[in-house]
Amino acid sequence: MSPKALDYDQLNENVKKCQYAVRGELYLRASELQKEGKKIIFTNVGNPHALGQKPLTFPRQVIALCQAPFLLDDPNAGLMFPVDAVARAKHYLAMTSGGLGAYSDSRGLIGIRKEIAEFIGRRDGYPSDSELIFLTDGASKGVMQILNVIIRDQNDGILVPVPQYPLYSATISLLGGSLVPYYLEETANWGLDINNLRDAVRQATFKGMTVRAMVIINPGNPTGQCLSLANLKEIVHFCIQENLVLLADEVYQQNIYQDERPFISARKSVDEIYKIASISLSPNVPGQIFLGLMVNPPKPGDISYPKFEQESKGILESLRRRARMMTDGFNSCRNVVCNFTEGAMYSFPQIRLPPKAIEAAKKAGKLPDVFYCLKLLEATGISTVPGSGFGQKEGVFHLRTTILPAEEDMPAIMESFKKFNDEFMAQYEDHKGYSRM
Amino acid sequence: MSPKALDYDQLNENVKKCQYAVRGELYLRASELQKEGKKIIFTNVGNPHALGQKPLTFPRQVIALCQAPFLLDDPNAGLMFPVDAVARAKHYLAMTSGGLGAYSDSRGLIGIRKEIAEFIGRRDGYPSDSELIFLTDGASKGVMQILNVIIRDQNDGILVPVPQYPLYSATISLLGGSLVPYYLEETANWGLDINNLRDAVRQATFKGMTVRAMVIINPGNPTGQCLSLANLKEIVHFCIQENLVLLADEVYQQNIYQDERPFISARKSVDEIYKIASISLSPNVPGQIFLGLMVNPPKPGDISYPKFEQESKGILESLRRRARMMTDGFNSCRNVVCNFTEGAMYSFPQIRLPPKAIEAAKKAGKLPDVFYCLKLLEATGISTVPGSGFGQKEGVFHLRTTILPAEEDMPAIMESFKKFNDEFMAQYEDHKGYSRM
Repeated sequence: MSPKALDYDQLNENVKKCQYAVRGELYLRASELQKEGKKIIFTNVGNPHALGQKPLTFPRQVIALCQAPFLLDDPNAGLMFPVDAVARAKHYLAMTSGGLGAYSDSRGLIGIRKEIAEFIGRRDGYPSDSELIFLTDGASKGVMQILNVIIRDQNDGILVPVPQYPLYSATISLLGGSLVPYYLEETANWGLDINNLRDAVRQATFKGMTVRAMVIINPGNPTGQCLSLANLKEIVHFCIQENLVLLADEVYQQNIYQDERPFISARKSVDEIYKIASISLSPNVPGQIFLGLMVNPPKPGDISYPKFEQESKGILESLRRRARMMTDGFNSCRNVVCNFTEGAMYSFPQIRLPPKAIEAAKKAGKLPDVFYCLKLLEATGISTVPGSGFGQKEGVFHLRTTILPAEEDMPAIMESFKKFNDEFMAQYEDHKGYSRM
Repeated sequence: MSPKALDYDQLNENVKKCQYAVRGELYLRASELQKEGKKIIFTNVGNPHALGQKPLTFPRQVIALCQAPFLLDDPNAGLMFPVDAVARAKHYLAMTSGGLGAYSDSRGLIGIRKEIAEFIGRRDGYPSDSELIFLTDGASKGVMQILNVIIRDQNDGILVPVPQYPLYSATISLLGGSLVPYYLEETANWGLDINNLRDAVRQATFKGMTVRAMVIINPGNPTGQCLSLANLKEIVHFCIQENLVLLADEVYQQNIYQDERPFISARKSVDEIYKIASISLSPNVPGQIFLGLMVNPPKPGDISYPKFEQESKGILESLRRRARMMTDGFNSCRNVVCNFTEGAMYSFPQIRLPPKAIEAAKKAGKLPDVFYCLKLLEATGISTVPGSGFGQKEGVFHLRTTILPAEEDMPAIMESFKKFNDEFMAQYEDHKGYSRM
């Protein structure tokens, strides 16, 4: 019989090479257990609403009115919608030609892009050009588009932090380029040492590669650290020197849980203008409205301001407390070390595993961190992602968890983790020491 | 000075090769003219709401309630929303975990996929498996994903109809594969002749290519024809014989303007099951709800049924009249021949151009159809897409227009087209004949 048209050995090799740990072995096992009736706490993907975070009221009021513009003509509208939400919905609808069901320009609605340019200007202290802003359906699509323009073949290298969010490794594989890793320093609070960058470029060049671009993730995912202004300046200088496109992934800029190191954009630290490219027909229009609402939330004096402030502060303050509870919980285990989650939505504790556990993992045909995370899942229902999915130094083991479970559940979750970890250690520890490089 | 990191000559060649005529030279010139104050009729992209088509009320009521679920608890909800919209919103919200702000499964919500499988089963007369359904952010993303899995290098060929929608040529270029054209027969109402397919495969194989897949667009874009059951069966048989993946683009299945040849899905004509693949994290959740509403519209007896029927019938009947007005208008010009638009949203008239016009185009450095469409734009504000953007036989010229301008504007638009065409012919015709193969 002739092979089928979609037989595995006839598929694109780059697609086969892709890996996406946040939806990998652990996630599949967790889904199975859930089907069998086990209660699972999904901390593998940063999906706040799936873990009970309530949406902000004002943006949802505005989008409901934009989706159903006939509500604006309803004499009862005033009973259900505040006047500022009504005004804002009219404001955005006037920017579209034909409402939310019409394609916009490929780069997004010019009105929204102007509001975003103004937001960026206010944030960074110098103007931004709306003509250079391209809106995409989420950060993943933006990363995909720009890397698609840059990567020509496997000799094009992209500097990516390790640990990294697997979007980068998967996209670079898919596009047939090469990932050039630079290691973040766990002992320096996941800081970025410019000497590691130089080494990484030198090694890649030695192998015949051209390093084309550098990715930074700030605040970090999965590592949760915030970059300092001095560090950002070094990075920008390095990119100019090495002629690299700088890709700054700053999606978590509003999620900051400490005051010493506020979020600073890479753009704020430079005078260069950089461009990104787009090839799609029209980004999702309701998504564009949400972006407009993010860069222009209700202002003091607006009817919806107090509620909006209360809701968004409530979320951030609770996340800050949860970041602390989680870090402290991990650090209370003697074989776990965890940097504080300064920003983003993740904790990335290092788990020191005894040699016996590593042997047991080997026998089971698993990586040691995968082995540990599977045991954790089976014992507690906590669904995490092994550190190997993000990259880590040889012989060092981590897991990534989100800080998103409901605040009231957090003490029980950390207690359950600690109990599991104690039992795991009791089973595998031989009192001779831990594995750590 | 060293080159900049994003200099044109350092970009991915496949990206440079991409062309996308529906947003090409004509569109850019139309945008310029619009900025200068000229009234432009955009018929270059099938964007109904941008040309005044009103959204259907019921789906918008449901999505507004899903976006702002607190409205469901509002004592005044009954004043603004019918009970069936309220029930439907609750039904879809119950399928999500966390509402519209939470990522769904990468393939889409299982509840929506089950509803779609049931719709497909009803449509085709045999069951569909929801586990094999992958939802994507629009058809373009779906095409991109499946071709990405199939195409390995430039020796992988994809059979594509000519004329075709440029999504296919652009995506195949971007992925580094080869487009293998098969010509549709204009004189046979843009029918598909299986002998043309065999020739196309033979020629591609002779050049060392492996033909991997075949695209059909039914109803056609830009050609507007509907495939018959007999023709579909031939195609499926051919794909089995040649071991090809069949990609059936059936986005316009509800847009049918004649009764002799109703829409028949490629799936209905086979007993084979085929799979598609997905690599994205979560398709847009509000878009999934709209899809659920499309496959399960209000039923007779529902409160919203009469209004929904009236609105959707009104749209389809008006489109049918517009298809007729446009075809007749084109055919009333003695140098224009146009097949009737049986389905989809497009007219693709053939324009016979006199030799003098072809010479004038050559002098202006333009393709003849681009030259004609630019003149049409300047004279009338009608923004079309030249046939060369979709592919056409050597020496034959077309343009594509949507049938979407408001019905009441249609007579004036066709009159304005006819007047332009008469003047154009008066200027360039030498009374010796037209160019046509």
